[in-house]
Amino acid sequence: EVSFDAKDHQHLRYNPLRDTWVLVSAHRMKRPWAGQVEKPPEEHIPRYDPGNPLCPGNTRANGKVNSHYDSTYVFENDFPALQPDAPDPGSDQHPLFQSKAARGVCKVMCFHPWSDVTLPLMKMHEVVKVIDKWAGLVEELGATYPWVQIFENKGAMMGCSNPHPHCQVWASNFLPNEPALSDRCQRSYYQKHGEPMLQQYARQEAERKERVVVESPDWLAVVPYWATWPYQTLLLPRRHVLRITDLTTEEREGLADIMRRLLTKYDNLFEISFPYSMGWHGAPTGPHLKEDNSHWQLHAHYYPPLLRSAMVKKFMVGYEMLAQEQRDLTPEQAAEKLRNLPEEHYKNREN
Amino acid sequence: EVSFDAKDHQHLRYNPLRDTWVLVSAHRMKRPWAGQVEKPPEEHIPRYDPGNPLCPGNTRANGKVNSHYDSTYVFENDFPALQPDAPDPGSDQHPLFQSKAARGVCKVMCFHPWSDVTLPLMKMHEVVKVIDKWAGLVEELGATYPWVQIFENKGAMMGCSNPHPHCQVWASNFLPNEPALSDRCQRSYYQKHGEPMLQQYARQEAERKERVVVESPDWLAVVPYWATWPYQTLLLPRRHVLRITDLTTEEREGLADIMRRLLTKYDNLFEISFPYSMGWHGAPTGPHLKEDNSHWQLHAHYYPPLLRSAMVKKFMVGYEMLAQEQRDLTPEQAAEKLRNLPEEHYKNREN
Ligand SMILES: O=P(O)(O)O[C@H]1O[C@H](CO)[C@@H](O)[C@H](O)[C@H]1O
Ligand SMILES: O=P(O)(O)O[C@H]1O[C@H](CO)[C@@H](O)[C@H](O)[C@H]1O
Repeated sequence: EVSFDAKDHQHLRYNPLRDTWVLVSAHRMKRPWAGQVEKPPEEHIPRYDPGNPLCPGNTRANGKVNSHYDSTYVFENDFPALQPDAPDPGSDQHPLFQSKAARGVCKVMCFHPWSDVTLPLMKMHEVVKVIDKWAGLVEELGATYPWVQIFENKGAMMGCSNPHPHCQVWASNFLPNEPALSDRCQRSYYQKHGEPMLQQYARQEAERKERVVVESPDWLAVVPYWATWPYQTLLLPRRHVLRITDLTTEEREGLADIMRRLLTKYDNLFEISFPYSMGWHGAPTGPHLKEDNSHWQLHAHYYPPLLRSAMVKKFMVGYEMLAQEQRDLTPEQAAEKLRNLPEEHYKNREN
Repeated sequence: EVSFDAKDHQHLRYNPLRDTWVLVSAHRMKRPWAGQVEKPPEEHIPRYDPGNPLCPGNTRANGKVNSHYDSTYVFENDFPALQPDAPDPGSDQHPLFQSKAARGVCKVMCFHPWSDVTLPLMKMHEVVKVIDKWAGLVEELGATYPWVQIFENKGAMMGCSNPHPHCQVWASNFLPNEPALSDRCQRSYYQKHGEPMLQQYARQEAERKERVVVESPDWLAVVPYWATWPYQTLLLPRRHVLRITDLTTEEREGLADIMRRLLTKYDNLFEISFPYSMGWHGAPTGPHLKEDNSHWQLHAHYYPPLLRSAMVKKFMVGYEMLAQEQRDLTPEQAAEKLRNLPEEHYKNREN
């Protein structure tokens, strides 16, 4: 009888945050790749480009002019998917043709006045400013909106159309699918086990160690046991924290530090500016601020698409779209690879 | 007061097959696109390539030799994500570290001996052979496996690494996430409304007409009310049919015809071989063959990634991954565009 080895034998793993399963078939990394190769990210981006609508002092598509900002800079998205005043679609009586009003705001937030830096290449105090601004936006928009989604699409491969370091913040009058699902899962876990799911999870991972990528006294980044993207990570505080607004000054500094360490490892993996989509999930806001949200734990998800090299990504297509997500290396293999990478950025080493 | 217009005002629509919502923000099509452009699909593919492991008579990576097939051809995937004999992962006592055994088979099915054809360019009787083979595989593998997923990844953009016309069939000892969700949704609709959800839906769409792309006495293809991908379609029979194995000879011919018409429109949209992932969902098999599955209705999903042109796709990234899917044109706009395209393939017109 052959004994089980996660690296050689396909199996399913349970994702308790989404109540779904992922198929882990690590032996598939052995197949040769004859498919699409990606263009590696542009390496030489000018610090200031007079034609880039995100640079300080420049004019955007709608004629508005950016301030000569020297830190973070927030403005309204010129082509927002959510606007504050859309009329109600009214209701169709049929249960298969249901619609609802969607209202909100979409903001863009530049991280830095320079186009040629990214978070891991910025100074500690500059990254702290980004975190403070994130918290400030959740405070402001979360006063009324039930959900404020902070997310960063990094790299052309992730649909990002501007190399200037920036993220987006979309606030909505509804709880979107993903946080609604995560809310349900965390709530029922809390009811059953009497402890926030992700706080217990962080403790377990800190003990088990095999999926840890970077850690510090306040923070932990792991390739989650149920990761779907090859080098997906979950970043979370050790203390029970509901929302990004609740982080202490010390925890924000700790977060800036661990983000820089994690993102440096990402860039060092294939020695390119690593593409990903990332975003924050915390307890809902607006009307939910008054409710008990003890089941929640603040966390960030990083979803990077690359699999084999700077040019070969994982395609989440046919089987993944129609049946179930499938991964080609174990989360433990991914974590080990990231963990063993240097914490000095390859661009700094070159100089 | 402004009155609601789906083309101008963002709103949410409910997907009853997945119990989720999609954000429709059609006004976003107005924003300029400065992001990644895709390489259009290769136009000149040789009919026979001695180096292509899918062509008749050629040797594959593992040394096996293809027969000199002259119709469809099925063989075992040389790098299967599912194998029949993987050992059980055993169980961790902790609820956050749950795994399960995964067993199954992965097959590849060539549609035609020639590399330079696709389904819409094949003859009617050749497409019927493909459908018969699909049914044959569901019959054979579904005798024991609870789920048999037929899917086609078409085009390099969809992770397909071989231009030869083919699909895959993965059978598993578990019901994957997507069909499990769809099973739950269809079951509860049936319990509440006493009619299969998708049969009722097809009837409604045939009456409403605005989302119909192509129809025939037995079949209907619509851009579903809740479509997420720009030109997503749902193809379904009008009669109550549980599985592809239950289709009559006449319905198989009707299916070949409507598939050719739908896929011709897809190719004509941007005058390229249109990339997509597609797959069939029908009532589960194996042990479920003996159960009452009246709530099920056979259907195929087509998920094509292109949005603006042959070179600009829709990126399902940041907000979509972390919060909720969002689309940039209404399903009615997409259906109208497809409906108005000619049913003669642009490649045949050129000749
Ligand atoms: O099996 P293929 O064609 O090599 O691979 C393709 O389809 C699979 C099933 O959807 C995916 O898991 C792969 O990421 C994709 O590249
Ligand atoms: O808003 P952007 O950066 O123009 O657009 C990008 O992010 C959005 C939010 O994830 C997506 O809807 C778009 O498909 C993507 O291209």
